Order: sequence, then C-alpha cells, then structure tokens
Amino acid sequence: MSSPYAPLLAHIARYVALTPTEADLLQTYLTRQTIARKEHLLSEGQVCTANYFVLRGCLRTYLVNEKGSEQTILFGIENWWLTDYASLDMQTPSQFFIQAVETTEVVLFEKRVQEEVLRQLPQLERYFRILLQKSAAAALFRIKFLFSLSGRRATIISTALFRGLCSGCRSICWLLI
Amino acid sequence: MSSPYAPLLAHIARYVALTPTEADLLQTYLTRQTIARKEHLLSEGQVCTANYFVLRGCLRTYLVNEKGSEQTILFGIENWWLTDYASLDMQTPSQFFIQAVETTEVVLFEKRVQEEVLRQLPQLERYFRILLQKSAAAALFRIKFLFSLSGRRATIISTALFRGLCSGCRSICWLLI
Repeated sequence: MSSPYAPLLAHIARYVALTPTEADLLQTYLTRQTIARKEHLLSEGQVCTANYFVLRGCLRTYLVNEKGSEQTILFGIENWWLTDYASLDMQTPSQFFIQAVETTEVVLFEKRVQEEVLRQLPQLERYFRILLQKSAAAALFRIKFLFSLSGRRATIISTALFRGLCSGCRSICWLLI
Repeated sequence: MSSPYAPLLAHIARYVALTPTEADLLQTYLTRQTIARKEHLLSEGQVCTANYFVLRGCLRTYLVNEKGSEQTILFGIENWWLTDYASLDMQTPSQFFIQAVETTEVVLFEKRVQEEVLRQLPQLERYFRILLQKSAAAALFRIKFLFSLSGRRATIISTALFRGLCSGCRSICWLLI
C-alpha cells in the first residue's frame, strides 16, 4: 500500500475487514495535516471538528488549571486516535487543548463526514467500538495509577515516562501526569 | 412493553433501531440478576464475565489501595453499563471490585454470547460505540474535576455527591472520589 493513509488502513485491518473499494472510498473522506511542535489542533473555547489519528509524532491533551498551569491528561502517539469527544459529539466549546508535542502528522476524520462514512462503511462502528473499549480499560488503569501515587511521586514518574515517550519509547500508550 | 428488559430496550431505542423480532432475539441472550447491598459482581483477581446494565439500584467500581483503603472510581446508576473492560476483553484477572451500593437489579450481557449477538444485531456495534464515546468524554471531565480540587476538597465534595446519588439524585452519572 503506497497510500499516505496506509498506517490507518493497516490499523483498521487489525480489527475489521474493508475491501480495496471500501478502503478507497474511506480515503476520499479523509484529510491529512502536519502540525509543528507546540502548534494546537484544538484550544479551550473552540469547537472540536475532528477525531485525529496520529500517523507520526505525538499529540497531547491538556487543560489549564485555575492557577494557570498546564496539566497533561492524555498523549496520542502513532496509531492512536485523539479528540475531545464531548466537544466533538455535542459541538460545544472545548475545555481542553490538543497540541503537538513534536512535529506531528495526523489524519482528520471530520465530524461533518462522520455519519456519512459510518453509514457507508458500518464496519467502522465495530472498529471504533473496540478501540473505545480499550480506552475505557486504560482510563481505569490511569485512575488506579493516579491513586497509587502521592502527588510528588506521580509527577516524578510521569515526567520520566513523558521523556521516555518523546525520545522514542512508543509502547507507553496512555499516561496521566 | 412488559418485558423485564424494557428499560434496556428503551435505552437501545434512543440510539439505534431494533425490530420487534430483533428485540426478542436479543432478550434470548440476556439474563438478569439481583444483587443485595454490598454484594459483589466482581472481585479483584476474578475474571470479568459480563457487561452489566443497571435496571434499578446502583453499582460502584472500586479498588483497594496499598494501605487497604477502598477508593471508588465509578458509579453505575440506572440505565448505565458498567464492567471492567480490560478483564472482560482479555479474560484476565481484574484489579477492581464491582459492588452493589444498594439492592440492584442488572442485565448481564455475557462475554460468551457477545460476538454472536453483535454478529446477529450489528446495530449494537453503533449503540455501544456511541455510549463508549460518552464515557470517554466523561472520563476527561472526571480527570479535570480531580485536578481542579485539592485532595481534601475532592473528598468532601465527592462524599456529598455520593450521598446525593444514594438518596435518589440520579442525574449525576460519573463520579470520581
């Protein structure tokens, strides 16, 4: 596959089958975007317009707390989807930021085409359902991890994990710092 | 509808359409269970065998930390699904407990029939995908809520919310204490 969307198509193929015609159809609905380091795909107050699949690089979702400090909630690494589902689903202003940690290339699955794509390719309902179950499982472990650490230890460990992630350790999928 | 599964069928109907024949088929795969207050559906070390839909009552997912204290992660109130997806999907021992907060009646959607049901009623892929997106959105807000509070304030507020929940306030869907 020489498509620029090949990593996404390979990821989908792990979970559901698309025929070559269906894969071609899907690609007509997708777009790509390259984001420079520290550039934002979403900022607080904006309405989220897409779900983002990371082809290369790394995204992070963070919030700015009452003291003005950034607090990272999630990372999206290669082969992961990241979005603000509350803002995306309800088309309401986001309370979060999504930023590129390094130069990052993403596939945009835009809200405006989502229902049309899912209608034409209902296998993708299963694909996203399975991925969201994995996310739900990971969310419980993030909270367990958070509860298991004092605040200071959590910061030290997660900072170390974050550095490992950015220097090429791609096996750590969901972190909370 | 006089079926004991009527609340679940009505919940499904909010998101996807099942014909009467399909609804009848679904019910042949489901079972119900009543759990007394403080009784467990799942304990740490057990493999989770089902996804639970709360018909009446309230469930909670909690963990026991290194100091032996229980820490509640999620509540499942009427019309909500609750499970340990990591244990359910991978059939590995759970690291969590699922307990009835009060006398609770649940529908069991068992792992052993899941794939067969989803194959016969693929609309349910969409149903669960939509619900899991809502859960993913709620998870971000839980973390935001947690970050926004000092430990003491979080405990006080969440205890108050917990009491409100148990005394009949069913509008609070996901809490983290």
